[in-house]
Amino acid sequence: MDGPMAHNGSPEKCTLTFEPDRVTIRVDRGANLLEAALEAGVHINATCGGQGVCGKCRVMIEAGEVDSEKTEKISEEEYEKGWRQACKTSLLSDCTVRIPAESRGLRPVMDHKLDMGKAERKIEALKTKPLAEGWPLDPLAVKLPVQLDPPSLRDNLSDLTRLSKGLRQHHHVEEISVGLRCLKIMPQVLRSAHWVVTVTLTGTSDPETVSPIEHRQRPLQLVRVEAGDTSAQNLAVALDIGTTTVCVELVDLKTGRVVAETAEYNRQAEYGADVITRIVYAQKPEGRAKLQSLVVSTINLLIDQLMEESGGTKKSISCIVAAGNTTMTHLLLGLETRYIREAPYVPVANFMPLVWASRVGIDVPDCVQLFSFPAVASYVGGDIVSGILGSGVFQKEALTLYMDIGTNGEIVLGNRDWLACAACSMGPAFEGGGIKHGMRAELGAIEGFNINPVTLEPMVITVGRKKPRGICGSGLISLLAELLTAGIIDQNGKFVHDRLSDRIRPGRFGHEYVVGWGEDSGTGSDIVITEVDIENLVRAKGALFAGCLTLLESFELSFGDLDRVIIAGAFGRYINLEKGKRIGLFPDMPVEKFHFLGNGSLLGSRLVCLSKGMLREVERIAKMMTNVELSDNHAFMDKYMGALFLPHTESRLFPHVGKYLEANWALVRRAREGSKDAL
Amino acid sequence: MDGPMAHNGSPEKCTLTFEPDRVTIRVDRGANLLEAALEAGVHINATCGGQGVCGKCRVMIEAGEVDSEKTEKISEEEYEKGWRQACKTSLLSDCTVRIPAESRGLRPVMDHKLDMGKAERKIEALKTKPLAEGWPLDPLAVKLPVQLDPPSLRDNLSDLTRLSKGLRQHHHVEEISVGLRCLKIMPQVLRSAHWVVTVTLTGTSDPETVSPIEHRQRPLQLVRVEAGDTSAQNLAVALDIGTTTVCVELVDLKTGRVVAETAEYNRQAEYGADVITRIVYAQKPEGRAKLQSLVVSTINLLIDQLMEESGGTKKSISCIVAAGNTTMTHLLLGLETRYIREAPYVPVANFMPLVWASRVGIDVPDCVQLFSFPAVASYVGGDIVSGILGSGVFQKEALTLYMDIGTNGEIVLGNRDWLACAACSMGPAFEGGGIKHGMRAELGAIEGFNINPVTLEPMVITVGRKKPRGICGSGLISLLAELLTAGIIDQNGKFVHDRLSDRIRPGRFGHEYVVGWGEDSGTGSDIVITEVDIENLVRAKGALFAGCLTLLESFELSFGDLDRVIIAGAFGRYINLEKGKRIGLFPDMPVEKFHFLGNGSLLGSRLVCLSKGMLREVERIAKMMTNVELSDNHAFMDKYMGALFLPHTESRLFPHVGKYLEANWALVRRAREGSKDAL
Repeated sequence: MDGPMAHNGSPEKCTLTFEPDRVTIRVDRGANLLEAALEAGVHINATCGGQGVCGKCRVMIEAGEVDSEKTEKISEEEYEKGWRQACKTSLLSDCTVRIPAESRGLRPVMDHKLDMGKAERKIEALKTKPLAEGWPLDPLAVKLPVQLDPPSLRDNLSDLTRLSKGLRQHHHVEEISVGLRCLKIMPQVLRSAHWVVTVTLTGTSDPETVSPIEHRQRPLQLVRVEAGDTSAQNLAVALDIGTTTVCVELVDLKTGRVVAETAEYNRQAEYGADVITRIVYAQKPEGRAKLQSLVVSTINLLIDQLMEESGGTKKSISCIVAAGNTTMTHLLLGLETRYIREAPYVPVANFMPLVWASRVGIDVPDCVQLFSFPAVASYVGGDIVSGILGSGVFQKEALTLYMDIGTNGEIVLGNRDWLACAACSMGPAFEGGGIKHGMRAELGAIEGFNINPVTLEPMVITVGRKKPRGICGSGLISLLAELLTAGIIDQNGKFVHDRLSDRIRPGRFGHEYVVGWGEDSGTGSDIVITEVDIENLVRAKGALFAGCLTLLESFELSFGDLDRVIIAGAFGRYINLEKGKRIGLFPDMPVEKFHFLGNGSLLGSRLVCLSKGMLREVERIAKMMTNVELSDNHAFMDKYMGALFLPHTESRLFPHVGKYLEANWALVRRAREGSKDAL
Repeated sequence: MDGPMAHNGSPEKCTLTFEPDRVTIRVDRGANLLEAALEAGVHINATCGGQGVCGKCRVMIEAGEVDSEKTEKISEEEYEKGWRQACKTSLLSDCTVRIPAESRGLRPVMDHKLDMGKAERKIEALKTKPLAEGWPLDPLAVKLPVQLDPPSLRDNLSDLTRLSKGLRQHHHVEEISVGLRCLKIMPQVLRSAHWVVTVTLTGTSDPETVSPIEHRQRPLQLVRVEAGDTSAQNLAVALDIGTTTVCVELVDLKTGRVVAETAEYNRQAEYGADVITRIVYAQKPEGRAKLQSLVVSTINLLIDQLMEESGGTKKSISCIVAAGNTTMTHLLLGLETRYIREAPYVPVANFMPLVWASRVGIDVPDCVQLFSFPAVASYVGGDIVSGILGSGVFQKEALTLYMDIGTNGEIVLGNRDWLACAACSMGPAFEGGGIKHGMRAELGAIEGFNINPVTLEPMVITVGRKKPRGICGSGLISLLAELLTAGIIDQNGKFVHDRLSDRIRPGRFGHEYVVGWGEDSGTGSDIVITEVDIENLVRAKGALFAGCLTLLESFELSFGDLDRVIIAGAFGRYINLEKGKRIGLFPDMPVEKFHFLGNGSLLGSRLVCLSKGMLREVERIAKMMTNVELSDNHAFMDKYMGALFLPHTESRLFPHVGKYLEANWALVRRAREGSKDAL
């Protein structure tokens, strides 16, 4: 169906040409000029993240119509001549824009054979192709208004029978079940409402007791009865419970639309950056209860934020769907995690019972059920099952490699007929965890980044075009790739000790590159990336890549056999595919084969909220997935060691990337030597 | 099947002849002589209830072998001659026993055309025919031992999957569901037990949320996992929650046998004798919660008694099944009862969710589910549905009238094809409630009773042959019938003011008859029945009889159309059918058509514990039963007024009883006038 998850129509496009390099890009009408440059792979100095205060991104509009705020960084005279701040300018027609010499970077390497032309690619998570299809809007919880005949001596059915009869007559609901909680309030609600009420029915019926998925053919369960017609207010909370970050969406089950979304660091992080340290903490006295209460308090905070953002009320929430890795799901439900950590790595259960959300401490009405995605193994959790659901991998013939980049990197290989998975402990680096100035993709996070390899001046674009406060995942990918491309770090991730600029300096954690000076930053302090940060990023990308390679080889496949690669993860708006390839995070494959899903786990959660029939697929996915254990796999360890290099020790694995880097390094060398043709 | 409820083989029979009246009866070898006399309708003076202390029941053994305790009431010389105390004597062979003149009553009316020969009939509840048949021993909860392979790196299934796999391999259990509570303890139990555990599976799977009956085809639910093999300890508690009395059985689900049974007055009774006054109390602030806690504390007391009696432990309890009237069930679960009382008499629900027993306050392990029988209407409750189940009425073609004699008299008419029911408020009189010396059928309760109509001396037999402490239901029926037959009270239930004996005297509540003098009683005080007691009994029997008549007539049937009458109620060992007819409690029908079920509600509860397939029948019975409302039924009110007479104002309804009473009264008159042939 052309449902709420489909593309919402295409905005008008404009053609934008950057001079003097003649780089052309098609962008949406209204696009921001600085962001368009980033997307086109064109460097414009910009240090304030796009807020308009550094005044470095001055450009000349040579042709076309723009909308641009007049700022104090541009004099009246300059403005008349066509000078604008790129970050404050949006396109209204086809345009030609000239970047002045002092703001430019190197002429981009535009060799299409190297497939590196469109260096940055703005891909909005929900506008990409790889989504589950063919699901009707049939929410996990429905609200149905009913008007009942009041009882009389000739018609003195019980309240429940009367309500059931009304649901049958008005809504063709054949059979319902109901709990004591509802029965306790039913007589009063029916009578105070003069027999006009709204009932909430859920498609799965057994909180507290059952693996709900197995019960998909059961009668609907009546979980709430409210006075009057409240059927227009029917909300669900979709959750992705990450080790580092908890992401949440508020879904309107009536319309299928996401009405609010937000994210917070998982408060458990205080007790350990990864699942292993969490499990260790959970074994301490009261540790498990503490970690449960921390993730629950994170969820409560998020739900409060959703309510504030949407103007909704908690009493309209009908259900919660949560996807998380196996440890996160165990801790949310208060289950023992010890044996997940100890060999042979055994979870308590893969399929989890439905529970009443309030019983685990989530601050929502008593009637709200919490569905947790089933896991496959100790290190392949419900978040992956959810991602495979949301991405539609389970529906298509195309042989797909699905990579979920989170604290734990999980990868899935397969198609509609078979699925295999593996987990490789990446650590939280690409979520900003363990990175000195890492942060989530929220206001002020550096998400786009370029370096002028001669001046080492950056082009910084932040979420919301605010002064930079830190660096999020996509920013870290860009940063690492640009440091490598500019020759600031070597292929081992170590700083090259040429004092090319005062942006490179020694620090407490080895050398560091100053991404943003304190004067330009939102924190007032310098924002840096250190050699230790880089080590963490290299280890993370190494683990993921080695995992992919091991998984492929265990089925006698190679990257060349893949029809597509889906990249999931809670990135911001940008995913720097080419830069990801450059650092060896992603395989060196044609850009057309890549799809960016965004937070696939959250997407699957939302899908289950909206279409309860998907529960059947969830069960099928979880049951068909074969886990390939990497933790004691020698092939994986070998591959991991080989992957601790940028992009990789085996150059045959990154042929295009290798050529591109060589070409760029040559250009950079010549530029630094003052060669005119490099500029 | 020849299951645990079937007849346990027949004991050897003896022929006993009472002289001088030549009354012969076949009784079990080992039978007590006093009880045998009561059963034969032969009077022997006895005032101490059968304890052997009054010394009045002296008889001469003329032939045959007996076992008799030598007491101080019989001299050496008398003993040699063959004198024995009847209450201390049991039969070892065919015997002839002579009752001396001072101890005898009138010569019994033995006219077989009047069908009054065998005046008392000892019918043990569970040895009668009308029981449900064809049910396999397939308990509501099973305990299965499993030995699992410990996990290894090559076999690292989740704990739950491993357990499920074990159940499939060892017990062919295909699918199970499980709740969070069980998952929380599972890892520890499995490991501490070295992977040898016992699981408890219940056949219905949705505590807290569903009308369980609808879910009979669902997977088994895992409710408990214990270390080691505990499968031999698997108990269920079957409950009949009466307005006045709560009866309970402890059922061994492994063998199908009842291992202990007991009963207590419902502690709610303090707040009202019948459901109406309870409902009124429930409407007061905290009233409903108070009544819930009182019935729960009664149940807790009973369960403690069961444990003491059986030597069992609560942790072996796997499930609880409760049958009660609609109000009792609502109060047990904490539901609003107000609209049961107010026209148009609407319960919250007929079908109740399964709940965790501990959640309503019952002091049993968390894993114990409480199943409540469904009701038909506000005044036809789960106790009746349970009785119809236990009695097998729903299985047979025979047109049956089922009468449940409790605080609320409920009657059911029908067979396997159709069922109709009605409720008539009897009050608690026949349970001993509202009767000055009424009591439950426990030790010392007068259960059998005769009067010598000349001397007015009684023959008193008590439960356990202890000194009398009060009068239970069957004793009250006997007492009322005997007072009427002896002409001590008239057909309006009023004392005839002839001072025939000092056993008749004025009292605070009108005239009264002294059933037992203080010197003979277990309380040290006189035990009496008052005119007010008699009024209560007459109203109770009048309501029941009028209800039966109204129900029959509403289907254009009469008593003559019935194939059988089943009488249910928590009586003791005796049911005084003939005497019940004499007072108009039971219809004047051939004795062969009557069957005594005992506590039918408790029987149905036990049956569900033992055979979960019966849940389907429970649902069918509750759904097929048509309720005939008597509360605003003019025909019923007319019939009730007519029934406030002993046996009834319409003599055509009691032709045999009428003739019998006339014949007896004539005999009594002649005897009192000193006529020899009356003696």
